[in-house]
Amino acid sequence: MTPDSINNVKPLIWQNAALQVLDQRLLPHQEVWIECRKVEQVVAAIRDMQVRGAPAIGIAAAYGVVLSARQRYEAAPTDWKQPMEADLEALAASRPTAVNLCWALKQMRKLLAGLRSGDNPVEALLAGAQAIHQADLEANHLMGRLGAEIIAADHERGREVMTHCNAGALATAGYGTALGVIRSAWKQGLIDKVHVNETRPWWQGSRLTAWELVQEGIPAQLNVDSAAAHQLKIAPISWVIVGADRIAANGDVANKIGTYQLAVQALHHGAGLMVVAPTSTIDMDMESGDLIDIEDRGANEVLYAAGQRIAADIEVTNPVFDVTPADLVDVLVTEKGVIHRPNREQLEKLMSRKAMH
Amino acid sequence: MTPDSINNVKPLIWQNAALQVLDQRLLPHQEVWIECRKVEQVVAAIRDMQVRGAPAIGIAAAYGVVLSARQRYEAAPTDWKQPMEADLEALAASRPTAVNLCWALKQMRKLLAGLRSGDNPVEALLAGAQAIHQADLEANHLMGRLGAEIIAADHERGREVMTHCNAGALATAGYGTALGVIRSAWKQGLIDKVHVNETRPWWQGSRLTAWELVQEGIPAQLNVDSAAAHQLKIAPISWVIVGADRIAANGDVANKIGTYQLAVQALHHGAGLMVVAPTSTIDMDMESGDLIDIEDRGANEVLYAAGQRIAADIEVTNPVFDVTPADLVDVLVTEKGVIHRPNREQLEKLMSRKAMH
Repeated sequence: MTPDSINNVKPLIWQNAALQVLDQRLLPHQEVWIECRKVEQVVAAIRDMQVRGAPAIGIAAAYGVVLSARQRYEAAPTDWKQPMEADLEALAASRPTAVNLCWALKQMRKLLAGLRSGDNPVEALLAGAQAIHQADLEANHLMGRLGAEIIAADHERGREVMTHCNAGALATAGYGTALGVIRSAWKQGLIDKVHVNETRPWWQGSRLTAWELVQEGIPAQLNVDSAAAHQLKIAPISWVIVGADRIAANGDVANKIGTYQLAVQALHHGAGLMVVAPTSTIDMDMESGDLIDIEDRGANEVLYAAGQRIAADIEVTNPVFDVTPADLVDVLVTEKGVIHRPNREQLEKLMSRKAMH
Repeated sequence: MTPDSINNVKPLIWQNAALQVLDQRLLPHQEVWIECRKVEQVVAAIRDMQVRGAPAIGIAAAYGVVLSARQRYEAAPTDWKQPMEADLEALAASRPTAVNLCWALKQMRKLLAGLRSGDNPVEALLAGAQAIHQADLEANHLMGRLGAEIIAADHERGREVMTHCNAGALATAGYGTALGVIRSAWKQGLIDKVHVNETRPWWQGSRLTAWELVQEGIPAQLNVDSAAAHQLKIAPISWVIVGADRIAANGDVANKIGTYQLAVQALHHGAGLMVVAPTSTIDMDMESGDLIDIEDRGANEVLYAAGQRIAADIEVTNPVFDVTPADLVDVLVTEKGVIHRPNREQLEKLMSRKAMH
């Protein structure tokens, strides 16, 4: 697949025999690339959110396995395999809630199982990581096309869309999930404007999504999160389009805090809610969204802004994500196909496929 | 009426023959009082949001009239009246959208009309301003009692409430409208916790409401605005309680951006929406909320936080308030009485009364 001409943003590059990571904490002010030559650097980059977004974390972890193998092979060419275990565990623990991270490590472990301790593992593992990387990019382009078809088919409601957080090129191999759909739809002339919620407390909307859209000349407008309902009331917004951090077997969607709020608003205002995520985000072992542990990231993200104290000395709750019941999801777009009003039966069918047919 | 023991916060004091204004831009970090001895200082304090909140602005303006009279009388004891016109106009223009400001100036003009140009006007006008000040405080205590009665009567839904922005002591003569109800309900043992939305972009929740509640030991918890729906889902929140900037004749409520979002969430989650505002906030000349001009305060409040650039270089929409249709308002609490599910007919009846009966 040829990279799209409007797909210039990439969070990760394998170059110079190392993983180059775009430091997303510094965006949009500085574009700093960090060269990871050791697995420990990849663990730190994931943990410290220099790379973020479920699919991008998975890809970074896969390259982390390559770096681990190189380090361990160079240290002990005939006994590199067992020492890698500690690195694999450190990678798995770097962001424990990102489901794509576990998925990517599982793929790499399958490759590892086929290698003998006397072999040089680097080439085979690098090929595996690059395959995961490339497959994610292709999945995003495919999901972009599928999502744009849905927008084209249901177009009379309005030519504007809204997104939350960053489910863009920066969160994936490139192109993006939710933003991939938006890129495709814009390229096809289906939308005129993207409404971006700033996404407190980490400002992924202000910092990352705004940066991606502006870089590519896609007309976009930023608003505070609590203005979303007002915008849905006054603007011709047909779809609210978001990514996902984890999708339960019954179709409930865990995603960035505020997604549930938007889902209710979409329902109230007659806009559709479209969730765009690769099937590596679907966790068939998680029966329902009610069982997903909602992580609280602590008070400081809310009490401080840009390093400055904002708030009075008050107790804080800072849930990282919320759960949108499947019942509020109008359409789920994956690389294996599209499900309208997802439920357990449909998800089981989808997951039983190897690819889209 | 004896000031309540849990009512320590006051934004305005008449002392030392001057209006003392608590600078709300510096809260909660610093408590700085500004002494206004001239009307120009009051105009600046309103314009620059050192004092904010519709009722508090009205009171400040009334004292501004007193200061104007003193300055003009001292300059020309036999011809002070006409020169005051420019000051009255400057006060009226200091925050053009605050409806209580016009109301307070109208009250002061009535007093002025009864004074002769040869009289010393200061004493009579000061008595008038103090009467407005005192009446607002009493109205807040009365509304607090009325609102708490409603909470007491409909108590089975849960012992927690949520508020947005700051409709507290700082926004009024003291005690507060929405926070007045919360203070009364807490004092009566009716609620266990107050959920405070941070209220982007100006953080009135984080800075002001949090400060008021913490100072008085009322259990409170801060969340980002987009977590409101999640909190309404998981916590036993019975009422969302807010103030108002302007209420149209049909009952539509203009209030801080995000109020409409909360109204929809309250409906979805089976919580009630209670709007608490003195009748000086009701504008019977405004037929419906659709006619209220939604002011946009410009990009910088959204692009910057704590003086630091946050966002990419993107177009911004920053509406100051939104309009909640009367249909989503479960109860309106005023100092002339309570209206369940307000409409034009009920508001006309309410406004025809001189006081509560």
